[in-house]
Amino acid sequence: MKTKDYFKILREIKDVSFATVDEDGHPQVRIIDVMIIENKKLYFVTARGKDFYKQLEEKQEVAITGVNKKYQTVRLNGKVKKLEKGWVDRVFDENLSMNNVYPGKSRYILEAFCLYEGHGEFFDLSVSPIFRESFSFGNCEIEKKGFIISEECIGCNSCAKDCPQQCITKGSPYVINQLNCLHCGLCFERCPVKAIKRI
Amino acid sequence: MKTKDYFKILREIKDVSFATVDEDGHPQVRIIDVMIIENKKLYFVTARGKDFYKQLEEKQEVAITGVNKKYQTVRLNGKVKKLEKGWVDRVFDENLSMNNVYPGKSRYILEAFCLYEGHGEFFDLSVSPIFRESFSFGNCEIEKKGFIISEECIGCNSCAKDCPQQCITKGSPYVINQLNCLHCGLCFERCPVKAIKRI
Repeated sequence: MKTKDYFKILREIKDVSFATVDEDGHPQVRIIDVMIIENKKLYFVTARGKDFYKQLEEKQEVAITGVNKKYQTVRLNGKVKKLEKGWVDRVFDENLSMNNVYPGKSRYILEAFCLYEGHGEFFDLSVSPIFRESFSFGNCEIEKKGFIISEECIGCNSCAKDCPQQCITKGSPYVINQLNCLHCGLCFERCPVKAIKRI
Repeated sequence: MKTKDYFKILREIKDVSFATVDEDGHPQVRIIDVMIIENKKLYFVTARGKDFYKQLEEKQEVAITGVNKKYQTVRLNGKVKKLEKGWVDRVFDENLSMNNVYPGKSRYILEAFCLYEGHGEFFDLSVSPIFRESFSFGNCEIEKKGFIISEECIGCNSCAKDCPQQCITKGSPYVINQLNCLHCGLCFERCPVKAIKRI
């Protein structure tokens, strides 16, 4: 799938989780509606009285995740910016139920924000082996995570034998199929010569 | 509802969001299964190779949220601790599909954790006015949030008139019905004498 399809999954789920860091450095998370998806940007609103608003203003960053009925997960991490007032109206035009919560002019206690650049990950637990893919949006490069097997590999098969997803291919060196890896770290622990490195 | 009912909602949703703070102070969030709920404690597992594991080991705290089909949200914030190996077996006994992802002995790359004390919030957007309730568990007191109207109130009605949930009652002073408040901050901004305080 393409990056824009991953954004679409979050709009379909609609009620997704937005995590921030509060002023004391603690994690905070709440359910927020994905209001608009356009050009690999994600739009949402929050009210000026909320702690979430304060945290966005202070750090301009957010982590987002949602899971759909097929057990497909999309995660995004990145930078947000506050938008002009007109975006609140557009959000209400495209999400009519918002008028039930903030009727009339009370909508203007809300501010619209846009996630415009960052990293993402798609994770599909419904297939076997599991499938994952990293992507990026805005002016960001793809962030690699997980484990790789270096040239120090002695081909002993300890890693491949116990891999829960059987996603390590024999060779010199052995190779972890990154698209199917859980990042569980079992191969990393098993390797007798420490040939497996955390990326 | 009681605190244990709010925990039950998260077990029913099962795939919920767990937020942490990474080593660089950025928010991180991913979908994790709620494996066991018992005595107002929440149990989950993660693998030693994952960034999530590293963050739990470093800070021993997490923020959790999920939303059910009725648009009821539960949020928890609190402290976690790592448990003995036996808990991984119990998690697999009570969540059989885990064997598809981590077959055989590969389960022991997982560690079990328990959220044992903290704060919670229930938020119901399906009713009008909306309904919210705070609670706590373990050795924690309830955390109050939102706004209150102080004795400085001049009874001008500016706050009550525009409240999106119409949850401010006339009086001397006026009173915000905390169970129905969005925490949007509109009353706080409207009060001409700054009688409304953030808790």
